[in-house]
Amino acid sequence: MNAPHSPVGAPLIAPRPMPEAMLDALRTRFGAQCSNARAVREQHGRDESPFDAPPPDAVVFCESNEDVMDAVKIAASHRVPVIPFGVGSSLEGHLLAVQGGLSLDLGRMNRILRLNPEDLTVTVQAGITRTQLNNEIRHSGLFFPIDPGADATLGGMCATRASGTNAVRYGTMRENVLGLGVVNAQGEWLRTGTRARKSSAGYDLTRLFVGSEGTLGVMTEITLKLYPLPEAVSAAVCQFPSVDAAVQTTIALIQMGVPIARCELLDANAVRAVNRHDKLTLAEVPMLLMEFHGSPAGVAEQARTVQELAADHGGLDFEWASTPEERTRLWTARHHAYFAALQTRPGCRAVTTDTCVPISRLAECITATVEEADAAGLPYFIVGHVGDGNFHVGYLIDPQLPAERALAEDLNQKLVARALAMEGTCSGEHGVGLHKMGFLVDEAGPAAVGLMRQIKHALDPDNIMNPGKIFSW
Amino acid sequence: MNAPHSPVGAPLIAPRPMPEAMLDALRTRFGAQCSNARAVREQHGRDESPFDAPPPDAVVFCESNEDVMDAVKIAASHRVPVIPFGVGSSLEGHLLAVQGGLSLDLGRMNRILRLNPEDLTVTVQAGITRTQLNNEIRHSGLFFPIDPGADATLGGMCATRASGTNAVRYGTMRENVLGLGVVNAQGEWLRTGTRARKSSAGYDLTRLFVGSEGTLGVMTEITLKLYPLPEAVSAAVCQFPSVDAAVQTTIALIQMGVPIARCELLDANAVRAVNRHDKLTLAEVPMLLMEFHGSPAGVAEQARTVQELAADHGGLDFEWASTPEERTRLWTARHHAYFAALQTRPGCRAVTTDTCVPISRLAECITATVEEADAAGLPYFIVGHVGDGNFHVGYLIDPQLPAERALAEDLNQKLVARALAMEGTCSGEHGVGLHKMGFLVDEAGPAAVGLMRQIKHALDPDNIMNPGKIFSW
Repeated sequence: MNAPHSPVGAPLIAPRPMPEAMLDALRTRFGAQCSNARAVREQHGRDESPFDAPPPDAVVFCESNEDVMDAVKIAASHRVPVIPFGVGSSLEGHLLAVQGGLSLDLGRMNRILRLNPEDLTVTVQAGITRTQLNNEIRHSGLFFPIDPGADATLGGMCATRASGTNAVRYGTMRENVLGLGVVNAQGEWLRTGTRARKSSAGYDLTRLFVGSEGTLGVMTEITLKLYPLPEAVSAAVCQFPSVDAAVQTTIALIQMGVPIARCELLDANAVRAVNRHDKLTLAEVPMLLMEFHGSPAGVAEQARTVQELAADHGGLDFEWASTPEERTRLWTARHHAYFAALQTRPGCRAVTTDTCVPISRLAECITATVEEADAAGLPYFIVGHVGDGNFHVGYLIDPQLPAERALAEDLNQKLVARALAMEGTCSGEHGVGLHKMGFLVDEAGPAAVGLMRQIKHALDPDNIMNPGKIFSW
Repeated sequence: MNAPHSPVGAPLIAPRPMPEAMLDALRTRFGAQCSNARAVREQHGRDESPFDAPPPDAVVFCESNEDVMDAVKIAASHRVPVIPFGVGSSLEGHLLAVQGGLSLDLGRMNRILRLNPEDLTVTVQAGITRTQLNNEIRHSGLFFPIDPGADATLGGMCATRASGTNAVRYGTMRENVLGLGVVNAQGEWLRTGTRARKSSAGYDLTRLFVGSEGTLGVMTEITLKLYPLPEAVSAAVCQFPSVDAAVQTTIALIQMGVPIARCELLDANAVRAVNRHDKLTLAEVPMLLMEFHGSPAGVAEQARTVQELAADHGGLDFEWASTPEERTRLWTARHHAYFAALQTRPGCRAVTTDTCVPISRLAECITATVEEADAAGLPYFIVGHVGDGNFHVGYLIDPQLPAERALAEDLNQKLVARALAMEGTCSGEHGVGLHKMGFLVDEAGPAAVGLMRQIKHALDPDNIMNPGKIFSW
C-alpha cells in the first residue's frame, strides 16, 4: 500500500496514535470537557475545505486560559500536535489533523472581557464570533467591521488574517488587532501589545501571531479596535453589462480615493445563486454591491461620485436599499453567496481561489480567469472584494470525480501564477493552510519561507502547534 | 578603572577593534566607498539622542543591494557588528556603535525604483528621505503621509515604526508598508510582501522587520502605500486656556470618529520656541494645530464639528490658514519644534519621552506629567500627536550636569510607569534603542521579550545586526 498523500501531494506523516498516558492525563485534568467520541472527533476533523483527513484523537473544550495552558502542556510533554478550533469555517484545511493530535475547541471561551467605548477598544475571548460580538456591543454605538463570509470566531479570524467586505475602508485583521493573549508552544500565557493605538516598543509580536494559522501558539484573548456606527449608511446595487465594466468602475473609484466602505462584485452565477437561496429578484448579470458610510452629506457626495463613474462604464441605474432591513437583506445574501452557490449543485464541494492583485491589474486578471473557467466547463461562481483587488472563484466539483478536482486545481494554479506575475498574492484573506503551501513558496521565495521556518523552529522546536500547515517542517 | 556603562546602566561589551583583515577586505571591495577617517566615523557614531558612545570602526557608503550584501557578508565572516545608517535622526541611540563595528550608510541609495500611481504604490530605496519622496512624486497627485519630526529616511522610518502628525487618519509605518527588500544577517537579499493591498500568505515578515531597529537585517527597498492628495485641505490653530482643555477637545473628536487628518498639541513652552525659531506670532498658550482633508463639503463639515467641540471646552476662535503657504509655514514650524526648543537653552540636549496611552486616559496622563515637570524645575516643552494618545515631553538638560540628566531620567521613568498603568506603551513612535530597554521589559513582560530574543537568536545567531539594542542578548 502506498503512503497516504496530503491534498497537495506531499506524503502525510503517518499519524502516531495519541499515547494512552496522554489521554489519561487529559481525562484526569478535564473530565467531561475532554472527549474522544467518534462523532465529536469527526466534527473537529473537518472544515469548509474540500479535503479529508483522519480526525484528531481527542477534543478538549477549553473554558479558560488555564485550560488552554494545561492542555498544551500535556500535549507538549507527549510531543503530540495541538490544533485550535473555533467554528470550523476554514477554507484551506487549517483544522485537519494531518499529523493526528488534540483539537482545542475554544467555542466556550466566547465572552467579552472588557468593552472600553471611550477608547474604541474591546477585549474578547478568542471563541466569540463576529456576529455575537457586534450584537453584544451594539448598545455602545460601536461596531467591529471585519466580516469574513462565515460567522467565524475572532480567534479564527486572527489566525488567518481575515478581512471581508469592509476592508477597503477599515482594513483587515492586520490593522485592527491591538494586542493578544497567547499560549505558546510551551504552554505559557503571554501578552502582546497594549491598548495604545500605536507603539514602537519592540518586535511586532501581535502581527507575527495574526496570520500564523495556529502554528506558533493558541490565541486566547484579543484586543480589537472598534469604530463608531456611521451616522449615515447607504447601500446600492448597480448592474453592469460585463464583469469587466464592473471592475473598471471599481478601479476608477479606488484610484480617486473615494472612501467607499464596501465594494463587492458578484458575477451572474453568484447573483443567480443568491436569488434562489435568499428569494431575491436581482437581475442576473454582473453586479456591484456597494455601501457608503459617513455623515449624511458625505454619503450623498460619495454616492454621487460613484454613480457618475458607474455611468461612464455602462453601469445601469443604481437601486438603493434605503431601509436598514433592505440593507441587511442584501448583505446577508452576499454573505450567503458561498453556501448558496454550493446548493446549486447538490453534493458538490467548492475549490475556492483567493488571489489578490494590485488594483490596476484586477480587470485583466479576472477577465482571463473567466475565459479559462468558461472554457473548462466546470460550474463556478465569482465573488470579489474588488475594492481590495481580491476575488474568489468557487469551482463546484463533484468530490467523487477526481478529474473534476484535478481540473479545478489546475485552474487555480493558472490563476495563482497569473496573480503572482501581476505582483499579487496567492491568498488575500483565507490563509495558506494545506492547500497553498506550494503557492507560498512560489510567491515568497525559498529565502522568505526559510525565514518563516526559522521562526517556527525557534518558537515551537517540537513542531506541536498545528503542524503541517503553511510550510513543510 | 571601572568598565564603561551604557546609558541605561548595563555594562557595555568592551568593543573589540575591527580586525585588520576585515578592513582590508572592505577596502578591496569598496575602495573609496569605505572610510575609517575619524570625522566620518564620528559623524556616523551619534544621533539625536543625548548619549555618547565610541564611533564605529569604519563606514561603507552603500550604493546598491549588492553593496549591502557584500558588506554584511564581510562583517558576518568576522562576526563584527553592522549598523544601518540613514540621516542620523534617531532619538534613542539606535545608531550608536556600543559594541563597535561597521556603519552602513544607505544615504546614496535614495532613488525611487518604481512609481505605480494607478495602484497608489511606490517602491523606493531605503535611503530616500520623506521630503525627497514627496517632492519627486508630487506630479502624480499622490503623497506619502507619514512625517516624523526629522526629515528621516524611509529606511529609518521603517526601522523605528515611525509615525508623525498624520497617523490619526493614515496610520503609521506599520499600516503603510506593503513589502520590503531585506539583507539578512547572512548577507542574503530577500523580499517580503507583494504589491497587493492585503495578504494572508504566511507569516507577516514585513511587520516583523518594521520596528526591528536594524537588529534582524538591513532594509534596502520599501514598497509603500500612497494616497491621493486631498481635494480640499484646511488647517487651523485653536488656543486653549489649559493643556487639559485642548486634550479634552481631542478626546471628544476622536470618540466621535471625526476623520481629522492631524491633531497636534503644543504647550505654551513649545509655542514660545517655534515663535522665536520661525518668526511666528502665535499666542503663547496651549494650542491645537489641526488639519482636515477631504472633499470641500467634507472638510467644511469636519471643521464645523471640531469648532463646536472646541468651544464646548473653552477653546478660543479658530484661526484658519487658508493658503497653502500659510499651512506650510505652520506645519514647518511644528516640525521644527524639537530643534526650536533645543535653541532656547544653548548647549542643551533633550531627553525626550514618547509614551502613548488609550485616548480616554490622555488628559489625566498629561496633567500629572505637567505637574511633575513644573515641580522638578527643569526646562521642558510638550508636543503631542494627541489624536493618537501619543505625546513627547522634551526635558532640556545641560549634558555637563549629571544631576540634570538623572532628574530627567527620573521624570521619564515616572511617566512611563504611569503610561503602562494606563495600558499604554513606553514608545509610540521613536523605538526602544538603548534608552528604553528596561521599559520594554516592564511593558511587554519577560515572556514576550524572551520571544523577541528567540526570534533574534534564530535569525542572527552571531548577534551582528545592530547588537545591544531593544533587548539584551
